[in-house]
Amino acid sequence: MKVLIIGGAGMIGRKLAERLARDGELGGKAISSLVLHDVVEATVPAGAKVPVKIVTGDLPAAGEAERLVADRPDVIFHLAAIVSGEAEQDFDKGYRINMDGTRAVLEAVRRTGHKPRLVFASSIAVFGAPFPEAIGDEFLSTPLTSYGAQKAISELLVSDYTRKGFLDGVSLRLPTICVRPGKPNKAASGFFSNIIREPLAGHEAVLPVADSVMHWHASPRAAVEFMRHAASLDSAGLGPRRALTMPGLDVTVAEQIAALRRVAGDKVVARIRREPDPFIEEIVAGWPRRFAANRALDLGFRPDAGFEEIVRIHIEDELGGHIG
Amino acid sequence: MKVLIIGGAGMIGRKLAERLARDGELGGKAISSLVLHDVVEATVPAGAKVPVKIVTGDLPAAGEAERLVADRPDVIFHLAAIVSGEAEQDFDKGYRINMDGTRAVLEAVRRTGHKPRLVFASSIAVFGAPFPEAIGDEFLSTPLTSYGAQKAISELLVSDYTRKGFLDGVSLRLPTICVRPGKPNKAASGFFSNIIREPLAGHEAVLPVADSVMHWHASPRAAVEFMRHAASLDSAGLGPRRALTMPGLDVTVAEQIAALRRVAGDKVVARIRREPDPFIEEIVAGWPRRFAANRALDLGFRPDAGFEEIVRIHIEDELGGHIG
Repeated sequence: MKVLIIGGAGMIGRKLAERLARDGELGGKAISSLVLHDVVEATVPAGAKVPVKIVTGDLPAAGEAERLVADRPDVIFHLAAIVSGEAEQDFDKGYRINMDGTRAVLEAVRRTGHKPRLVFASSIAVFGAPFPEAIGDEFLSTPLTSYGAQKAISELLVSDYTRKGFLDGVSLRLPTICVRPGKPNKAASGFFSNIIREPLAGHEAVLPVADSVMHWHASPRAAVEFMRHAASLDSAGLGPRRALTMPGLDVTVAEQIAALRRVAGDKVVARIRREPDPFIEEIVAGWPRRFAANRALDLGFRPDAGFEEIVRIHIEDELGGHIG
Repeated sequence: MKVLIIGGAGMIGRKLAERLARDGELGGKAISSLVLHDVVEATVPAGAKVPVKIVTGDLPAAGEAERLVADRPDVIFHLAAIVSGEAEQDFDKGYRINMDGTRAVLEAVRRTGHKPRLVFASSIAVFGAPFPEAIGDEFLSTPLTSYGAQKAISELLVSDYTRKGFLDGVSLRLPTICVRPGKPNKAASGFFSNIIREPLAGHEAVLPVADSVMHWHASPRAAVEFMRHAASLDSAGLGPRRALTMPGLDVTVAEQIAALRRVAGDKVVARIRREPDPFIEEIVAGWPRRFAANRALDLGFRPDAGFEEIVRIHIEDELGGHIG
């Protein structure tokens, strides 16, 4: 089985690549080759059991998507995107990468005549306030960012290309990924991860919103599991509605902090500094908080066990088991 | 006030142009110029009170949309599209005209720096079965045709360009237009009109689905009113959700035929021949039947008075009051 990851140098792409290279199989089928594509050079996972090929290029550029699918991958993970903040600041770049890039992949696949499973990384950013108490599987997409609009458009394309029989697509609306590894960034959602990651690493973190703010979270490990599960999902159970909201955890900031305290103690929690930022508070107020992700649950997607588990996953996967 | 109608040779476009040219005003403001664009040559309405300019061209072709908006129209009606049957049969053409064409218009407007009201003709084809008993304003878009996907994508673009302040857009999800005048076209929904129009003109009509099929209808006259009303709607009442389902009439084929019988008698109804078509039946089975179009009603959009009224409107507007 040939596997292609587009966006293979990104946070989820890299973790997915590591997992697949280590397992050497996906859904019970041996992987014969793993191709990692990104605009920056992806890394061959250490100890890979399968041949890994690194391809670097600009996805929406002429011929790039065709080149990627020329050897007819059986499973394509499409995770390439520029993030919400950048898509909002650079309108043209956002549409070029996040919408035209997706369309280029779908068109290239269509031209091969092959019908691979395509797993597209969408986002809960396809939704926009006002929301019901829990957002169900039949709630409309009215994004309030260009990033969300580009993801919603890509979902529609994936579903239509699937309906026409050009490929077999599934779009996964990922929860906010927490704990996001790496450096703090200025993304409005950054604090959800910062308040866990930074204190665990011995650094101070700023909390710009009230403790009562609720949001929808999944660990990087859960996101990788969603991708793997989607790759071998039976098409018959999916029907024509190919966009699925992934199960997450609805936790408040207070619950996040309580979980951090139970795992890492008061000393670590004391590194969180409250500094309310009305600008961030207003943005976050428009975000979804809780979903009833029943279709995904029925199809076997599983959320993290709890926020303590999310904290422990971060300590295991990113800190080698050590708290700073 | 400068007005541009893209798709000005189409059925609604032509009727809208006739109405605006006759009124000489829109929303209480005098029209200084009316431009009618289409891929075929539009007609200058008889007795026009305003200067009418006819422009012919291929909307998604390079430079075409820019040319159209160069003189900064204040109101743009974008009705250009290829119909559902053709978009389903010619995948590339459908996306090129219905999606790339819309995007070209939005981009061209953005480049002018002007912020016109743009009224986009969307469709209830953005919805796909299964449906609730009545489809509410928060129900998701999961189109089951490429035409529907292209309209749903265009809606997302119109909303995002509006949110970014590039223009002031409204997408109107038109009910199926009945009675559609003229020759039968490639729309899969054609029979809803054929079974009224053809018998009234003394011709036989084919009914390819069961009498129990329910659908959501509006007359051409109602559609023109929706467009006019949308042109001067206050943006403040619209918020960021710029796609509105228009109010229609939920009638079954049996109710359509009963209304025709009441207006035109048994002899006319006898010209309907039942000839089930599995291709059409399958498409129609995925279509919506009934809506709760509350937002549009609250914003002052009004449905036809009843299906008999729809039949009478056709006889008045298309047959000079005479039944064949």
